[in-house]
Amino acid sequence: MVHIVVNYSLFFQICDILGTLAFAISGLRLAASKDFDWFGAYVVGLTTAIGGGTIRDLLLDITPFWMTNPFYIICSGLALLLVILFKQRWVSQEHTWFLFDAIGLGFFTVTGIERSLSVGFPFWIAIIMGTMTGAAGGILRDVLINETPLIFRKDIYATACIIGGIVFHICDAAGLGHEITAVIVCLVVIAIRMLSVRYHIQLPVLHLKINKE
Amino acid sequence: MVHIVVNYSLFFQICDILGTLAFAISGLRLAASKDFDWFGAYVVGLTTAIGGGTIRDLLLDITPFWMTNPFYIICSGLALLLVILFKQRWVSQEHTWFLFDAIGLGFFTVTGIERSLSVGFPFWIAIIMGTMTGAAGGILRDVLINETPLIFRKDIYATACIIGGIVFHICDAAGLGHEITAVIVCLVVIAIRMLSVRYHIQLPVLHLKINKE
Amino acid sequence: MVHIVVNYSLFFQICDILGTLAFAISGLRLAASKDFDWFGAYVVGLTTAIGGGTIRDLLLDITPFWMTNPFYIICSGLALLLVILFKQRWVSQEHTWFLFDAIGLGFFTVTGIERSLSVGFPFWIAIIMGTMTGAAGGILRDVLINETPLIFRKDIYATACIIGGIVFHICDAAGLGHEITAVIVCLVVIAIRMLSVRYHIQLPVLHLKINKE
Repeated sequence: MVHIVVNYSLFFQICDILGTLAFAISGLRLAASKDFDWFGAYVVGLTTAIGGGTIRDLLLDITPFWMTNPFYIICSGLALLLVILFKQRWVSQEHTWFLFDAIGLGFFTVTGIERSLSVGFPFWIAIIMGTMTGAAGGILRDVLINETPLIFRKDIYATACIIGGIVFHICDAAGLGHEITAVIVCLVVIAIRMLSVRYHIQLPVLHLKINKE
Repeated sequence: MVHIVVNYSLFFQICDILGTLAFAISGLRLAASKDFDWFGAYVVGLTTAIGGGTIRDLLLDITPFWMTNPFYIICSGLALLLVILFKQRWVSQEHTWFLFDAIGLGFFTVTGIERSLSVGFPFWIAIIMGTMTGAAGGILRDVLINETPLIFRKDIYATACIIGGIVFHICDAAGLGHEITAVIVCLVVIAIRMLSVRYHIQLPVLHLKINKE
Repeated sequence: MVHIVVNYSLFFQICDILGTLAFAISGLRLAASKDFDWFGAYVVGLTTAIGGGTIRDLLLDITPFWMTNPFYIICSGLALLLVILFKQRWVSQEHTWFLFDAIGLGFFTVTGIERSLSVGFPFWIAIIMGTMTGAAGGILRDVLINETPLIFRKDIYATACIIGGIVFHICDAAGLGHEITAVIVCLVVIAIRMLSVRYHIQLPVLHLKINKE
């Protein structure tokens, strides 16, 4: 299996930390609503944070990113500690975590695209992998807590990743450098995510009158 | 990772298109019953169509088939378009889609067996992989819409794939050519599937009186 | 993909058989409570038995263990046969199967750790993989029967695997031989599992008052 190591600048390392924390905490919060114990909650938080990238790396046939660096395991543990210690002040910080989640979504989309391109896959695969990196963790989280996936029913979420992927392609074709492209895509995803929630923009629901099977 | 490219004749290409459409539409219909939005429905449809083959290719350690050809991504998008545009006339076409689904089941079984044999696995693995290619997409679909898998409770479905796999083995041992074997297996799976639904043939239910844990 | 073949002594072969049977039967019992048919129940039983090891082997990029030896497919079929034939006498044997399940948990933890180390991963990955081998099959089982995973809510289960992994590391650092280390870890996991159930030791539940999203 191919080992891929990408060195990110400080800006992206901060995005990675904030995003991983925010994703893990979204898993921990939903696990808590199901009365999971600390271990169960940790697994749900960790799965939310690393699940999308893990499926991506299995499909790309490269060593899953969290297996070459214990950062993600530790960061999810830190998220559990934060939730256990500061649970009372949580509600008031809703907006902060929403912002961090959006930052994570943007950053994870960029990493998914870059890793796919770095092992030689074409752009349409990279866009799918970017979207999967950002959105599949939340789907796995909802499967583990036995709910229908939230992102299939609510808000613009994965769609922001797809648009981010297309913007990446455009920036790349326009000859923009790697670093600037990554920043632009990250900001585009964050902006789409925040605007869609602010103005309640949703995708149409699929309606179909059928006799139940 | 090994890239496997199999060239199918026109007959099998038509089976592939009809089967992919039928599998995707079965996912889209169930997603619609859960009020998923277009993106959520597309993911469920796509997962139904490519999920079984993806798990198979990960287990066989070959590049997932849909990552070497955008056909399946596009075909599932076409299925979404069909459902959005023609939702009113849907009920009356129940029988047509059931037929296409059976064709897909037969064809996917054959492709699963052939891919497994082509990378050197023995026949018992090929039968499992053929069954997985045909049936696992529907299981993933039901996990995503948060229902217990339909094929665990109803009708002969995966069993048709297993019998198809055994027939493949017999034809192969009898020295029949590749193309004729594939056609026979495909027809056997379709016939078993249709007869079992027509005559309400079901597997026995597993009964067990136990004190709940 | 790398093929890993480990030869176990008779003691561990017996552990493997008892553990696989116990894991498969736990899946079959829960499948029966959902009125699954024989095939559905078999798939749930098989997934419980081999699911954890399969995810581990996909992450380690080695051929899934059950694909190089039909033992596990057959053993799960035997479990189905046992359940069909002896369903009446089942309740009274609850304690026996609990013991076998604990034996399986201990043995699977050891195999997970050893396989990870044998392909060159560090100890923290081996502990995760040992835990996954023991506990992920039960999670997949609960996803397939559409329940929230039992081990996220009840008893010490995966935690026993983690402690077993740490004990493995200590024994290894102390220079104990391979066979004696494996036996000690196996017994530690079994003991923790049995004591926690006997004395109702549980992990704390994660509580969090939040407004529902």
